[in-house]
Amino acid sequence: MAHNAFYAQSGGVTSVINLSALGVIDAVAQYPKKINKLYAGHNGILGALKEELLDLSQLTEQDRLALRYNPGGAFGSCRYKLSSLEKNRREYEQLLRIFKAHNIRYFFYNGGGDSQDTALKVSLISQEYGYPITAIGIPKTVDNDLPFTDHCPGFGSVAKYIATATIEATLDVASMASNSTKVFILEVMGRHSGWIAAASALGQSVPLESPHLILFPERPVARSHFIQQVQEMVNQYGFCVVVTSEGVKNTEGHFLSATGGHDAFGHTQLGGAAVILAQWIKEDLSLKYHWAVPDYLQRAARHLASGLDVEQSYALGKAAVEYAVTGHNAIMPIIKRLSDNPYQWTIDSVPLSLVANIEKTVPEHYIRPDGFGITEACRRYLLPLIQGEAFPPFVNGLPEYRAIPRYFVQKKCSSFFIEES
Amino acid sequence: MAHNAFYAQSGGVTSVINLSALGVIDAVAQYPKKINKLYAGHNGILGALKEELLDLSQLTEQDRLALRYNPGGAFGSCRYKLSSLEKNRREYEQLLRIFKAHNIRYFFYNGGGDSQDTALKVSLISQEYGYPITAIGIPKTVDNDLPFTDHCPGFGSVAKYIATATIEATLDVASMASNSTKVFILEVMGRHSGWIAAASALGQSVPLESPHLILFPERPVARSHFIQQVQEMVNQYGFCVVVTSEGVKNTEGHFLSATGGHDAFGHTQLGGAAVILAQWIKEDLSLKYHWAVPDYLQRAARHLASGLDVEQSYALGKAAVEYAVTGHNAIMPIIKRLSDNPYQWTIDSVPLSLVANIEKTVPEHYIRPDGFGITEACRRYLLPLIQGEAFPPFVNGLPEYRAIPRYFVQKKCSSFFIEES
Repeated sequence: MAHNAFYAQSGGVTSVINLSALGVIDAVAQYPKKINKLYAGHNGILGALKEELLDLSQLTEQDRLALRYNPGGAFGSCRYKLSSLEKNRREYEQLLRIFKAHNIRYFFYNGGGDSQDTALKVSLISQEYGYPITAIGIPKTVDNDLPFTDHCPGFGSVAKYIATATIEATLDVASMASNSTKVFILEVMGRHSGWIAAASALGQSVPLESPHLILFPERPVARSHFIQQVQEMVNQYGFCVVVTSEGVKNTEGHFLSATGGHDAFGHTQLGGAAVILAQWIKEDLSLKYHWAVPDYLQRAARHLASGLDVEQSYALGKAAVEYAVTGHNAIMPIIKRLSDNPYQWTIDSVPLSLVANIEKTVPEHYIRPDGFGITEACRRYLLPLIQGEAFPPFVNGLPEYRAIPRYFVQKKCSSFFIEES
Repeated sequence: MAHNAFYAQSGGVTSVINLSALGVIDAVAQYPKKINKLYAGHNGILGALKEELLDLSQLTEQDRLALRYNPGGAFGSCRYKLSSLEKNRREYEQLLRIFKAHNIRYFFYNGGGDSQDTALKVSLISQEYGYPITAIGIPKTVDNDLPFTDHCPGFGSVAKYIATATIEATLDVASMASNSTKVFILEVMGRHSGWIAAASALGQSVPLESPHLILFPERPVARSHFIQQVQEMVNQYGFCVVVTSEGVKNTEGHFLSATGGHDAFGHTQLGGAAVILAQWIKEDLSLKYHWAVPDYLQRAARHLASGLDVEQSYALGKAAVEYAVTGHNAIMPIIKRLSDNPYQWTIDSVPLSLVANIEKTVPEHYIRPDGFGITEACRRYLLPLIQGEAFPPFVNGLPEYRAIPRYFVQKKCSSFFIEES
C-alpha cells in the first residue's frame, strides 16, 4: 500500500532549488506503488508543524515549467531549527500527529547544514515513536559549505554569476581608470567560507587579470597589508579590482562589517565589508573607489544559471526519492566527482548523522600562499561547476517566471502554537 | 582626396558602447573616398590632446567580434570637459595641431551630455581657426538623460538588467519573508533622473507585483511617509521590495546618501541611499532588511543586453558617419519613435547646440501620482527598449570577452601638458 511523501525547502534559497523540487516530483511519479501523494511544506518545516501542506499533484505542466525556471523557493522557505527531542518533545509529537493524519511516511528536506540537521532529527521519530518515517536530506546551499558532497547544488550558478560580473565590471573599470575609479570592490556572499569569492577568479584570463585581490573569511586581513597590496596593483595595472567575502575578518577575528559604522548605521547584519574596505582606501590612499554589493541578486540570478548546476539540482531531487523507495533512510545524496577534465560525476550518499552542522571552508591548498587569490588546484575544482548555460525562456524582454499556485490541503488536526525565536 | 577620422568614447561607459564604435568602423569602410584612416582616441578626448591615437584599421575580424560583445569602453574613456575657447585657447590649439598633423577632418564623440558639449566645442575650431573639421556626437548614457533622442543607447540594457534583477530578487525574498527578510532595497544608478529606477517596474506582472515602492530623484522622500508606505506594503504583501535611485533626495533637497555616516565613512560618492533607507527601516520598523547595490555591474552586464539596444547603438555609430560624409556638421544622430506597439523607430538628428548640457528627467506624467511607481504611459514608453536578447557567445562557462589590442599611432607632435582637475 502506497503512503504519502512530504517535501520542503529550507534556509536561504537559490536560483535552482526548484529544480530539486521538480526532481522529487518526477521521481515520485515513477513509484506509484510506493508513494501516493506528494505534499510540500509551506515555508519549510513550518508547513509541517502548522499543517500547511500544498498538494503538488495538482500542479500543471505549466507549473512544472515554472519550477524549472523560477529562482527562489516555490513553496516558501524558512530559517527554523528543530530543537533536540529532549528540549522540545511537543514539536516532534506534532510532526508525528501531522504525518499520521496525512499518512506521510517519506520526508524530503532540501537545504544546507541546518536543514540536514532537521532531516536527521525527523528521522529520530521512527526510533522514538515507532512510526516508520524515511527522512532524506537534499543538499542545497550557495555557500558550498556542506561536507562530503563534491559541491552543493546552487553554488555553481552563483559562481558563474560572480565570475561573469567580475569580468564585466573589470572591463568597465579598466576603461575608466585613467582618470576616474581606480579601485573597485565587489562584496559577495560567504559568511564563513570563501567559495563564492574564490569563483570570482574563474575569468581571470578573460581578458584581463582580475580580480587582483580576493579576500576570504578563511584569511583575516590586516589593514596595512591590504592597503599596500591595493597600491601595488594600482601601480602595476592602473587599477585594482577587489572581491571580498561578506564574512572577511580583521586580524582580531572580528567581521570587518562589524568594525565600523555601527553607531550611526546600527549594522547588525553582514553586508558591509565593502563599505569598510572603501573607507580604508579613501583614508589611506585617497584613490577614487566604487563598491558593489549584489546581495540576493547573486543567488537569485536564474537568468545566468550554470547548466551543470541545473542538471545536478534536478538529479539530486530525483536521487533522494530513489534512495527512499529502495529502503535507505537518514541519508543525503551527494555529488561525487570522478574526474576533473573531462569532468565526470555520479551520485552517492552519506549518513545525515555525519553531515549535520559541519561547514566545509576553502582548504589551505586552494588559497594562494599570499592569501589573496586561488591556486591552480582550486581552479581545476571550480571550473567544471560553471559549465553550460540554461537560460530561461524570455517573453516580452524578460525571463518568463510564473506564479506557482499553492493548493492547500484540508487540515485535519487542531492548530499548533510554534515558539519562533 | 580622403582625410582621416577620429572617434572616441567619453564619460561613464555602457555594456554596448563598443557597438557604436563598430558602427563607426563599418560605416567608415564604406566611404573610402571620403575617409582614409580611422583613429580612436585613447581615453576619450585626452587621446587627442595627448596625441595617443589608436589605429583602428589594424583591428582583425576577431577584434571586431570583441567590440560586438565586450562591455566597457574598448579604447578607454575619460571624464574630461573642455573649457570654453576663451578660457583655455591652448587646448583648442593643441587639438588643431593634432588634427592637422594626422590629417583628421572628422571628429566623432560618443558620450552623454558633457561629451556632446565637447563635440560642440570641437566644432567651433572650424569657424575659429578656419580648419574644416566635421564634429558629430554619438549619444550614449545609461541614465537616459539626453534630450531630443527618444532614449539613449546603453539605457535599454541597464533597464533589462534591473527589471530582471528585481523580479529575481522578489521571487527570492517572497519565499523567505515569512520568517526572514521582510524589506529588500535595491539601489540603482540615476543621480538626477529616475529612468533606471522606473524600469524596475517592467516585470511588475511577472509573477509578483514588485517593486512595491520606487524612489525617484524627481520626487523627494519624507522619512515618515516612506516608512508608512513600507509598513503598508508589508501588511498587504507580507514583504516589501523598494527600488531606489542613487540620487534620491530628502525633503530638504539633500541627497539621502549624503545625510548619514559621512563622519565615519566619509561618503563623498553617491551609492549610499540604500544604506540610509535600511537604517530608517531598522530604526522605525524593526523589520529584517537586506539591501543590494549592483553599481557598475548593472551598466557592464553585456550578458543580459537588450537586443534593441545592441541594434540601435550600432545604428547610431553608423549614422554618425553617414551624416558626416554627406555634409552635416555639429549634430547628434538621435532615435525617433514612430510607434509604441508595434514599436517602430528611425534615425534623425539634432544640432549639438541644442543638446549640450540639458538633462532629461522623468516627466510628471510618467510618475504615479503617489510618487512611488510609474504610470501606464511610462510603461508603454519603456517596454520596447528591453526587447530582444543578445547573449554573447559563452566559452568555458563564461561570456567570451576578449582583449582588444591597442595599435598606437606614431606621434608627430611635441608633448602637451594637460591641467587635469
